This record gives sequence, C-alpha cells and structure tokens, in this order.
Amino acid sequence: MTDQRDQPSLDELAARLAEFARERDWDQFHAPKNLAMALAGEVGELLEHFQWLSEQQSANLPADVKDAVALEMADVLLYLVRLADKLDIDLNAAAVRKIGLNADKYPIEKSRGSSRKYDDRA
Amino acid sequence: MTDQRDQPSLDELAARLAEFARERDWDQFHAPKNLAMALAGEVGELLEHFQWLSEQQSANLPADVKDAVALEMADVLLYLVRLADKLDIDLNAAAVRKIGLNADKYPIEKSRGSSRKYDDRA
Amino acid sequence: MTDQRDQPSLDELAARLAEFARERDWDQFHAPKNLAMALAGEVGELLEHFQWLSEQQSANLPADVKDAVALEMADVLLYLVRLADKLDIDLNAAAVRKIGLNADKYPIEKSRGSSRKYDDRA
Amino acid sequence: MTDQRDQPSLDELAARLAEFARERDWDQFHAPKNLAMALAGEVGELLEHFQWLSEQQSANLPADVKDAVALEMADVLLYLVRLADKLDIDLNAAAVRKIGLNADKYPIEKSRGSSRKYDDRA
Repeated sequence: MTDQRDQPSLDELAARLAEFARERDWDQFHAPKNLAMALAGEVGELLEHFQWLSEQQSANLPADVKDAVALEMADVLLYLVRLADKLDIDLNAAAVRKIGLNADKYPIEKSRGSSRKYDDRA
Repeated sequence: MTDQRDQPSLDELAARLAEFARERDWDQFHAPKNLAMALAGEVGELLEHFQWLSEQQSANLPADVKDAVALEMADVLLYLVRLADKLDIDLNAAAVRKIGLNADKYPIEKSRGSSRKYDDRA
Repeated sequence: MTDQRDQPSLDELAARLAEFARERDWDQFHAPKNLAMALAGEVGELLEHFQWLSEQQSANLPADVKDAVALEMADVLLYLVRLADKLDIDLNAAAVRKIGLNADKYPIEKSRGSSRKYDDRA
Repeated sequence: MTDQRDQPSLDELAARLAEFARERDWDQFHAPKNLAMALAGEVGELLEHFQWLSEQQSANLPADVKDAVALEMADVLLYLVRLADKLDIDLNAAAVRKIGLNADKYPIEKSRGSSRKYDDRA
C-alpha cells in the first residue's frame, strides 16, 4: 500500500519492476547473473560522480550532481530489488539479519572510533 | 525470519544504521565518497558468487550460496540506504521517478523483446 | 623506448601517464584512493557491454562493440598502471608472483575442469 | 622474451595464463562475460583496501597493506590480459590509442588544474 506521497515498499517496487519487464518481454534477459552485472554497472556510474571529489565535497554536492546521484542510486536500488525478486530473496529480512550480525561483529566498546574492524573482515 | 512487525521501511533502516554508526563513532568515516566505495566493494563480492555460473545456474542457487548472496545483497542495501541518508536523498522518491523515466525511455511497443535500448543508453 | 609498432612496456605507459597528468596539473586529483575509484568506474562501463549478452555472444562481439570494449579495457589498464606508479608498485613483478601463488593454490590435478576452487577462495 | 628480472610483456603474460587455463581445462569458464565479472570482483576487493582511508593515507600505505594491494592489482591485470586474449584485443595498441584520444579530449591549456573535463565525459 502506498500513501499519497507514493512510498512503495520494496515488495511493491518489485511488483512494478516485474510488470515492467513482463510488458517488454525482458524476463529472458533477467537471469540473476545478468542483473548482478547490471547492478555493478550502475554502481560504477555512481562512483564516477565521487572519484575526484574530496570527502568534504562529496558531502556537499551541487544540486545538479545530487540529482544525478539520486537517479544512479535509484538504478542501483531497482536492480537490487529486481535481483532479489528473481532469486526469491526477502531483502528486508536479509537487511535486518545483517544488522544483527554486524552488531555481534562490531561490539560498541571495541569498535568505537576505529575502522579497523571493517578492514579486518574477509 | 521476520514477521510483519519487522518489515522496516527504508527510512527505518536508515535510522537504525545512523544509530549504529553514532554508537561506534563511525560518522567520521562515512563521507558519501567512502560509502559509495564500500557499496561498490560489496557489489564486487556479490559478483564473485555469479561469475562462473551459467545464467541458468544463477537462477537455481544451492541453499548455502543463496544465503550468502542474500547477505551480500543486504550489505549493498544497507550501504545504499546509509549513503542516501548522508546525502539527504529520498531513495523511494528517486526510485519511483526513475521507473517513470524508464517507462518514457523504453516504450512497450518499441522495446519488446529487445535489449538494444538498454545498450543504447549513455 | 618503444619500437615502430609502439608496444610500450607498462613502465613506459606509466611514464606517459605521469607526463600527461603533470602537464595538466592533475596530480592533485590522483590520490591512490581516487584512482582506484576511477578504475572501478571504468570496469563498470566495461560490464555494461556484456550484461545482456549470452556467454557465447560475449565471445563473438560485433566489430563496433569490440572496438568500444577495447577502449574501455584501455581505460582500465591506464588507471591500473597509473595507480601502480603512484603507489610505487611493480605491476609486472606482482603479476608474476600472483601466477606463482595461483599455481600453488590450484594444483593441476585437483583443479581440472572445476570452478570450485575459484569459488572457495576468500 | 623475459630478462633476468622476469619482466614479461602483456603478450607473454597472456600466453602464461592461456597455458594455466588449458592445463586445468578452465577455458570452458572463461567466456569474456565471465572474465569481465571476475575482473570486476577483483576491483571490488581492491576498493575495500581504500574505502575508509583518507586520500593522504591512501598514498602512504603500511607495508602489509601495500603488499595486499599489489596482489589485488595483479589479479586485475591478469584478468584484464586474459580477457583481451580471449577477445583478440591488442591491449597495448588500445592503450596507446586511448592516450591519443585523451590528449585530444583534454587539451593542456583548457584542462589545467581542473577535474571538470573528467566529469563531463559520458
């Protein structure tokens, strides 16, 4: 269910994308392997917006760049949702589970102010 | 497994991640530039699961691989949501807008059964 | 030194790129972190050429696509060489060393015809 | 031909990798599409070394990190060389051609000290 502001859940986005693909007979292209590649391609485009910026500049994007970044991020989300749908993966459940795993992996006291733990992971 | 009570919206995921970072004093590392890189790193891990599989195999993952893929996809989603939060980007709104743009760009009649349009985009 | 066929070594490519950057005062942008991102962005563009193709199609590219792919691969090589130069890494030596490590890791008899070993690595 | 320091050309690296794959019957996995994905996966691992570092830190890596980065970069080079071989692309020629194209695209006078041109490209 979406409200007036059209805030679809991930399941609703998945349903819209499935219909979009079905209408265009694109399911034949949407093997998970291919969708993962398409997702990676969009992330590459996202990186290009940030590669020559300082960290501080990246936090203060001009309006036109911010808008372009938002659309690249939308592409990433849409391919991610589509991939999850094709694999029958519950993305919300996986995200909640991952947050729990991260809480175990990075205990507050031991992780405070250090990016070490990030780097130590496989 | 989550029940209906734990289907967080993207906004709720963002709030949990913001608290997670604040508790660990990790905001200092979370410049958008860095988060975009971390997102890309996770996508690289996702690709590694698919790279030697056929398209058909990628649609029929063994349970253990599917589970690992789900957690990689969760990582992608979490960094994407965190990045959107730091940039003050409404990911849901961007996704809805992008679907509309794609509908204009790939008219049903002209796009049916062809991946050409995908390739033609910039 | 290059011969008439202009087959520069990686060191020669690195020297040309260093001069290219110096002439344009681009060293200020070429932190290894940034170059790694730029490299990843180019790889994303490379992926986009292959994402909807079958494996067989990917081995039989039309001439125009092959040409575009060659230039994307050149971008990847150039950023890789530039990154190695900025980090003072001997890419050739690292490649030779890696081939040796892979030979140990994937013994011929145990690896024949199996992609498993690939997947098992970290 | 390699000298005592074992500085193989890209062609020589390609020959070694072809033999490596043939001995293990891995050609069946090495469709260009798959190799491009494997390349992207390695680049993802490379990014992970840099994602939480400042630009300055990225230019002053501790010895153990630098060594790990060198091996990731070797992986990138090896997959790139292998991909070029499978596609029958002359990577050296493409690199030389790309440097020429870049010289036209970024004239010294107009590009000095500006990353704008980078961002303007498609």
